[in-house]
Amino acid sequence: MNELLDLAGIFVFALSGALLAVRKRLDVVGMAVLAEMTALGGGILRDLILNVRPAAFESLGYVLVPLAATAIAFFWHPHVERLMPAVLVFDAAGLGLFSAVGAEKAMTAGLSPLHATLLGVTTAVGGGILRDILAGEIPRLLYDRQLYAVPALLGAAAMATLSELDLHGWPAVLASAVLAFCLRIAAMRFRLRAPLARGVAPPE
Amino acid sequence: MNELLDLAGIFVFALSGALLAVRKRLDVVGMAVLAEMTALGGGILRDLILNVRPAAFESLGYVLVPLAATAIAFFWHPHVERLMPAVLVFDAAGLGLFSAVGAEKAMTAGLSPLHATLLGVTTAVGGGILRDILAGEIPRLLYDRQLYAVPALLGAAAMATLSELDLHGWPAVLASAVLAFCLRIAAMRFRLRAPLARGVAPPE
Amino acid sequence: MNELLDLAGIFVFALSGALLAVRKRLDVVGMAVLAEMTALGGGILRDLILNVRPAAFESLGYVLVPLAATAIAFFWHPHVERLMPAVLVFDAAGLGLFSAVGAEKAMTAGLSPLHATLLGVTTAVGGGILRDILAGEIPRLLYDRQLYAVPALLGAAAMATLSELDLHGWPAVLASAVLAFCLRIAAMRFRLRAPLARGVAPPE
Repeated sequence: MNELLDLAGIFVFALSGALLAVRKRLDVVGMAVLAEMTALGGGILRDLILNVRPAAFESLGYVLVPLAATAIAFFWHPHVERLMPAVLVFDAAGLGLFSAVGAEKAMTAGLSPLHATLLGVTTAVGGGILRDILAGEIPRLLYDRQLYAVPALLGAAAMATLSELDLHGWPAVLASAVLAFCLRIAAMRFRLRAPLARGVAPPE
Repeated sequence: MNELLDLAGIFVFALSGALLAVRKRLDVVGMAVLAEMTALGGGILRDLILNVRPAAFESLGYVLVPLAATAIAFFWHPHVERLMPAVLVFDAAGLGLFSAVGAEKAMTAGLSPLHATLLGVTTAVGGGILRDILAGEIPRLLYDRQLYAVPALLGAAAMATLSELDLHGWPAVLASAVLAFCLRIAAMRFRLRAPLARGVAPPE
Repeated sequence: MNELLDLAGIFVFALSGALLAVRKRLDVVGMAVLAEMTALGGGILRDLILNVRPAAFESLGYVLVPLAATAIAFFWHPHVERLMPAVLVFDAAGLGLFSAVGAEKAMTAGLSPLHATLLGVTTAVGGGILRDILAGEIPRLLYDRQLYAVPALLGAAAMATLSELDLHGWPAVLASAVLAFCLRIAAMRFRLRAPLARGVAPPE
């Protein structure tokens, strides 16, 4: 179950990487690299910081699923772009799941709830940041004012709190992931926006 | 004492990250990410290479101080910009301290003096490089011809030498940090510049 | 023998970093940073993922050879640029060698052949990707349609297969490296190109 959810999150993140590669007119190698890095980058950062071998280098599916996403984007990217609103919903699911799983692994490794929250956010947004840097863009997360990192932060904080209360395992992960997912969907639906510093005009 | 100096260095580096974020019109999330990465990035790289859990994920202050710097930049960035000359002096202090602490941790972990020097420089300049990459700019360090990495290099080399002579502990760290600090201040005061390759015209 | 080949690969990769720095008008610090990162970045990523201390921080030559390449580019870059076709042949040799060595270290560390292949490619192309990101460019690898990662992939896969058949040691490494080298040279000679996604026009 956990494995399946994980692979679904990886698939959607990989798709967002491959689609950005198509928009930037990268070749098929660039598509595959962006798909792999978007999908696996956050988890690899998490595992490097926890000082364990990255899960991406021990699982078959983690490596192959982004290649499947690359193939889909390669042949059918105009259709996938048209499904973008649906992709964003799946991306929100991936965001929630990765933040909860990241925070749970961090708690299990003995980090404090504060640091587990930080690492959960890193897991959820790290891949997207690497994707944008590789594509030569400022990471969307940093300027687009959409609430993206904040839902991940609250989901990871919820997971860290539950774990502190001795509530571990997949029900706690799922509850935290659903919280982050709902917050992210609400942020999109109601156009909630992150503020700019005082007196700063929005870009453009 | 060490802890206090460390937090001061983290604060100044975080401030430089948050101020760059304001100049690039990033939102508050971007400000916080840049502040955290600038302040903690160099130390995280150092600890990953030394194969230990990053100190940033075990200390409360390391995570919270950059958030305080973010809040200050958020509300009072025009005033802080006016204090920039003072900020640069503090930044030089942070540079010296991080290079000395980085080299000392590397010597303690058993690296050779040469490699400890290299890791000291990485600690001192790594956060600033990550800050500039995230902000979509070529790292200042690479082109602006100011002597920034060189003072860090000499401070780290001093620390490695002292450690090789069995002079450890905070007096050696402080002496090396002061050396790097003075060199950096002298480089700013006397406009010392790194050379360009033969026949290369300066940019612009 | 292995050590000598390794240092030759490091030298050529470092040269490509230092030359890009000259073209971007970076100063001598930028040249040294780009030379070190291009030459050592892929191996450092590999060792971080394998959870061992990076070889670059235990060998004297690994650190000093990129500085020699920096000095050569600093004084004689116009002559080196004229030798570019020869440099590209050496670069192909470095590519082959790094992919084979990376895959072999990964197999020895107990990774599956698939993951060892992935890590071999990472070792071979990681430094070049870091070089381009530091220089403020989209990594060439992602868009220039030259077959660069694919020869590395096939060389790494060959090494993983040989290792799976209990054929270890330098003859297997050399055979795999030569395979990747020949494929890379053939790709340059016959202008083999990576495809773009359906309906995507090439950049420019």
